[in-house]
Amino acid sequence: MAAESYDRTEGLSNLLDSSKIHAMDAAILAVGSELLGTDRLDTNSLLLTRTLGAFGVELQRKVVTGDDVEAIVQEVGRLSRVVDLLLITGGLGPTADDLTREGVARALERRLIADDEMLDDIRRKFERFGMSMPEVNRRQAELIEGASWLINSRGTAPGMQIDTDDCVLFLFPGVPTELERMIESSLIPWLEEHSEGLQTETGIVRVACLSESTVEERIQPAYEEFGRERISVLASPADIQVRVLVTGRAEERARELEAMTDRIAGLVGRAAYSRDADGTLESVVGELLSAAGKKVATAESCTGGLVAERLTRVPGSSEFFEGATVTYSNRLKRELLGVKADTLDRHGAVSREVVEQMAVGVVARLNSDLGVAISGVAGPSGGTAAKPVGTVHVAVAEAGSEDVDHQELHLPGDRRRVRRLASQWALEMLRGRLLR
Amino acid sequence: MAAESYDRTEGLSNLLDSSKIHAMDAAILAVGSELLGTDRLDTNSLLLTRTLGAFGVELQRKVVTGDDVEAIVQEVGRLSRVVDLLLITGGLGPTADDLTREGVARALERRLIADDEMLDDIRRKFERFGMSMPEVNRRQAELIEGASWLINSRGTAPGMQIDTDDCVLFLFPGVPTELERMIESSLIPWLEEHSEGLQTETGIVRVACLSESTVEERIQPAYEEFGRERISVLASPADIQVRVLVTGRAEERARELEAMTDRIAGLVGRAAYSRDADGTLESVVGELLSAAGKKVATAESCTGGLVAERLTRVPGSSEFFEGATVTYSNRLKRELLGVKADTLDRHGAVSREVVEQMAVGVVARLNSDLGVAISGVAGPSGGTAAKPVGTVHVAVAEAGSEDVDHQELHLPGDRRRVRRLASQWALEMLRGRLLR
Repeated sequence: MAAESYDRTEGLSNLLDSSKIHAMDAAILAVGSELLGTDRLDTNSLLLTRTLGAFGVELQRKVVTGDDVEAIVQEVGRLSRVVDLLLITGGLGPTADDLTREGVARALERRLIADDEMLDDIRRKFERFGMSMPEVNRRQAELIEGASWLINSRGTAPGMQIDTDDCVLFLFPGVPTELERMIESSLIPWLEEHSEGLQTETGIVRVACLSESTVEERIQPAYEEFGRERISVLASPADIQVRVLVTGRAEERARELEAMTDRIAGLVGRAAYSRDADGTLESVVGELLSAAGKKVATAESCTGGLVAERLTRVPGSSEFFEGATVTYSNRLKRELLGVKADTLDRHGAVSREVVEQMAVGVVARLNSDLGVAISGVAGPSGGTAAKPVGTVHVAVAEAGSEDVDHQELHLPGDRRRVRRLASQWALEMLRGRLLR
Repeated sequence: MAAESYDRTEGLSNLLDSSKIHAMDAAILAVGSELLGTDRLDTNSLLLTRTLGAFGVELQRKVVTGDDVEAIVQEVGRLSRVVDLLLITGGLGPTADDLTREGVARALERRLIADDEMLDDIRRKFERFGMSMPEVNRRQAELIEGASWLINSRGTAPGMQIDTDDCVLFLFPGVPTELERMIESSLIPWLEEHSEGLQTETGIVRVACLSESTVEERIQPAYEEFGRERISVLASPADIQVRVLVTGRAEERARELEAMTDRIAGLVGRAAYSRDADGTLESVVGELLSAAGKKVATAESCTGGLVAERLTRVPGSSEFFEGATVTYSNRLKRELLGVKADTLDRHGAVSREVVEQMAVGVVARLNSDLGVAISGVAGPSGGTAAKPVGTVHVAVAEAGSEDVDHQELHLPGDRRRVRRLASQWALEMLRGRLLR
């Protein structure tokens, strides 16, 4: 196995000392002319950096090169001399422009050796799909001298691991799903072997509808208690993620992660809605609704159905989502929701009075437990001096309650952003109501 | 000016011959430790590759390095020896970890010289905002020996252009809006000067709801007529972009682009819905509705409002969009849309009969000219042997017409993808109806 043969490499022996694992550094080389074009970025590197980060390996460089053997030789040659771990993605396919094998072999001055066993393996993969292997795929069974194969269970291109005196190289295919699987089956076991249980893990606290500076201010004490470098704040519109980093062995990690996210969620207050990277605001609202045995309906104007669309992204949403109306015209606000003509005339469609009637109306007409209503000016046109673009009213009503929640918002940005922010506030107000 | 001083550089004289401009090659170096983390990619490089592509400059490498002066020295040193044009972004800020100036100066063995005039400029920028310049910003006024300044009208960090015997280097700030402006004010004029009007332009034909292989097959004659290397096919779910590349001077470019996109759109047939990079399917449908003076309403089940949400993304959608209902439950299908209980019992909610009644119902109840209805199984649960996940029925009805269009779809993928594909087919069926 790869990891065992690594133990025998003398030049890297310092890496085997777990106390020094954090000094290991790495580079990522992505091969593929399409990655130098105007549309695609090397997103594979994010999969790899997450894994490297989890083991405290420091990334020194990311390089992208085209399907050009001279360029590959150059980059592999120099990178393998400056880092301990070189991760190469792409260029392992069967066609003439797949040149990673050749490039790496030349850079390391090693031969390519046809491996009959691997060739049989690849042939069988094709046969399983009732096809015969094209002759070009023979190239995928050529192993760089001294390398070991890495199994690719999701495609025909196997990977390789090569241990040199200076560096350990991993060659992975560029197809993201194949790479993802091989990170798990090859890279993580290798890193585990060489980190002796010491790992870095990320915790998260998700926060809705607070400004970045407010969050920063509130979590100030956590910066002081845990160290500023272990906490980072990632802001997107009306949705902030506070991330914490913990390094250690499994049990201490779990303990410390909990302590840190507890403390931060406590400092942030009610706006901290989830500690799960996949816990979107809509899924959290869905859970609260399901737990309460309640269903919600939406009545939307400027958001055009975005709140309903977000709620129904959640698998199983029929359990907590009743239905929605999108009422763009005043006529539909009257006919579908029972908003009074008089109220529309007197206050205009974008007003507290109208959204409150919309929210009450959608609860009654759709026979739901809760109703959320939104009316606003998303732009680019339609704004006035009194109600400029970004003016949005949101209301939440509940069956059997007189008490209707209302907020008037003044949201920044273009049409897309105003709609996105308005949907976020609507979900957050719904969450607030459910927590009361 | 930069361009003039360039003319005097002998080593690069071959680049000045416009017939050879397409042999110019380039590399991009992005500086910033955040670009080596787990969240951010160097998206600035896409702004730059688009510009390089427009002038036929070939990109050889993209490199990302942290805020590490030794790494910058290494990368600038080697890249400036292998390419004609080196574009560097980031690391021009005022703080201690902004090391691009130092790194480039050391790589080129040149000094950094304080420029009092630039210092005054920066000071004035701060004063315009009623602030005094922090002392750290002094560093931004240090010019690399022999370089010329590039104006940054959107920030305090000026850029630089340095002409060496081997290479022309541009140093740009990493803030995307600042970079974008400086590409226009500095890089494009320089490229124009050295390409003498020869530029490359991209044309596009957008295609809905055809498979990639069908599109490939249909445009085969265009590959032969115009050359395969000038046409590329970019596929996303039920939405394909055929891109064509044209190089030449302004008038020939326009003529050839039109000829190529005409031919390709003709070969693809009716599914080619736009030749505008910003022409989304929803905006094209909106234009057709507006031109016909008609309004549409949607009745959605599994898409949860996504079709309504897409239509209302289009600015001014109130002109052609009436409203929508999202009817998740059978009860709401009956109450809001008048679907017959008997039909629901006999055929189930996911059936031709039910979506047809939904489409007719939404036209009548919302008083619109056209109605689109969708009912399906988006998953992950809810599938049966007879109606597996991905089964979706779509119908389009029109006021005053007995003729209801219907399609039964079997869509691949997870919940998110099934919903996205179903919304795409619904919009495409609506377009088909409007074109009839």
